[in-house]
Amino acid sequence: MNKLYIIKIGGNVLDDQEALEQFLNDFASIKSPKILVHGGGKLASELAIKLDIEQSIVNGRRITDAETLKITTMVYAGLINKQLVASLQAKKNNALGLSGADVNMITAQKRTIVDIDYGFVGDLVENGVNTDVLNSFIKQGIVPVFSAITHDGKGQLLNTNADTIAAAIAVALSDRYHVELIYCFEKKGVLKNILDENSVIKTMSQQVYVDFQNDGIISEGMIPKLNNAFSALQNGVQSVFIIHYSDLLKTLNTEHAGTKLTL
Amino acid sequence: MNKLYIIKIGGNVLDDQEALEQFLNDFASIKSPKILVHGGGKLASELAIKLDIEQSIVNGRRITDAETLKITTMVYAGLINKQLVASLQAKKNNALGLSGADVNMITAQKRTIVDIDYGFVGDLVENGVNTDVLNSFIKQGIVPVFSAITHDGKGQLLNTNADTIAAAIAVALSDRYHVELIYCFEKKGVLKNILDENSVIKTMSQQVYVDFQNDGIISEGMIPKLNNAFSALQNGVQSVFIIHYSDLLKTLNTEHAGTKLTL
Repeated sequence: MNKLYIIKIGGNVLDDQEALEQFLNDFASIKSPKILVHGGGKLASELAIKLDIEQSIVNGRRITDAETLKITTMVYAGLINKQLVASLQAKKNNALGLSGADVNMITAQKRTIVDIDYGFVGDLVENGVNTDVLNSFIKQGIVPVFSAITHDGKGQLLNTNADTIAAAIAVALSDRYHVELIYCFEKKGVLKNILDENSVIKTMSQQVYVDFQNDGIISEGMIPKLNNAFSALQNGVQSVFIIHYSDLLKTLNTEHAGTKLTL
Repeated sequence: MNKLYIIKIGGNVLDDQEALEQFLNDFASIKSPKILVHGGGKLASELAIKLDIEQSIVNGRRITDAETLKITTMVYAGLINKQLVASLQAKKNNALGLSGADVNMITAQKRTIVDIDYGFVGDLVENGVNTDVLNSFIKQGIVPVFSAITHDGKGQLLNTNADTIAAAIAVALSDRYHVELIYCFEKKGVLKNILDENSVIKTMSQQVYVDFQNDGIISEGMIPKLNNAFSALQNGVQSVFIIHYSDLLKTLNTEHAGTKLTL
């Protein structure tokens, strides 16, 4: 099977023009088929503040009322997505920006209210990734660039977690490609001691993850990302890395950077 | 040759939820290959006001400074484009939202400063439409939905006139399809007397257009649209209509609505 890289970038690199430029050069230089998934960054929150729209975040997830959904759609699917696409085009990557609504690429459903009403937040539905069309785009040499906006198929846009989208796409394509899923963020990997940037856990099995969680070693904020990552591994994804965004090429070429997750 | 409809909607229908819903029902019911091109509406201006970004419009074109470009990209390529796509998907049209940067679909160049610096406004370059990819999407049953954001191929997004984009796409596809270009707006057609909604000019040849212009009958605001329209006809587009957005199906089925332009 051919290799396919699915690379997710978060807010920190998006908020730093110089780092972003370097990252995009690295990403653009990858010759294998690849997909970029991006989060949001500070821009959406800043815009909400300027527009006097109150924001609240519960368990690391933004509460998305109707006005907040407009802002995230504008910023993620509009400004950030198109800037990334234009930049990759300049670097001769045939980027195509996508939300989940475009060609029905990712279907989600509005999160059911249990204790908290998350508003217009979408949880992916089973088989929600339109794998055939996505694969046909990849085969045409297109580089899909996903924002984390999805839809419910009934006309409603939804705000979805970008880590989850990256994992779902990775799983959906894992029977056609040898998929490597790489989460890029602002730390050098999963840290054993959050205060020590050099305490990177080089390899982490699922059992070690469970032990570390029980020992309180894994910080709260990493848990959703790691759950997504292990779930991807369990469902056919070949390998998952969690790395600093400046270590992309090092990871691809030597596998000696950041944290490698194993089953 | 197969028929292809290229339909452009402007701000007025986008600003009216009920009218938009009706328009999208009509559009979605068209069985032939089709492309939707949309303008902006009041939303971008409203957002600029809320954010205290001063706007100026010269000769019907928005002056696009860096901050205004961000706003138009957010609103046009983000919010409006994705809402249209999600809505069409709900109506079982396989819509794909596109800016000119996506798959390098439309290349423009920053307008040269003569008297006025229009800022980040893009004029389309010759052969700037990526006809092969666009046609391959159409053949896959995809319904392209274009916002009026383009790029220069060097990483810069640009704000481009939506009427011009519709005409350029129509011309670019006219050697592969029998292209019908339909401009939908808030009047019943080109009016002989701007104060009389019922003074629609049913058919207008290029010669009549020149005569009307000389007689001052054509209102200032209509001239760029009509120039685009006649230029499209001269360059291979089969027919061009200028109609009220509620008259779409009437125009397609009977050709008895709005203004039909002829050479």
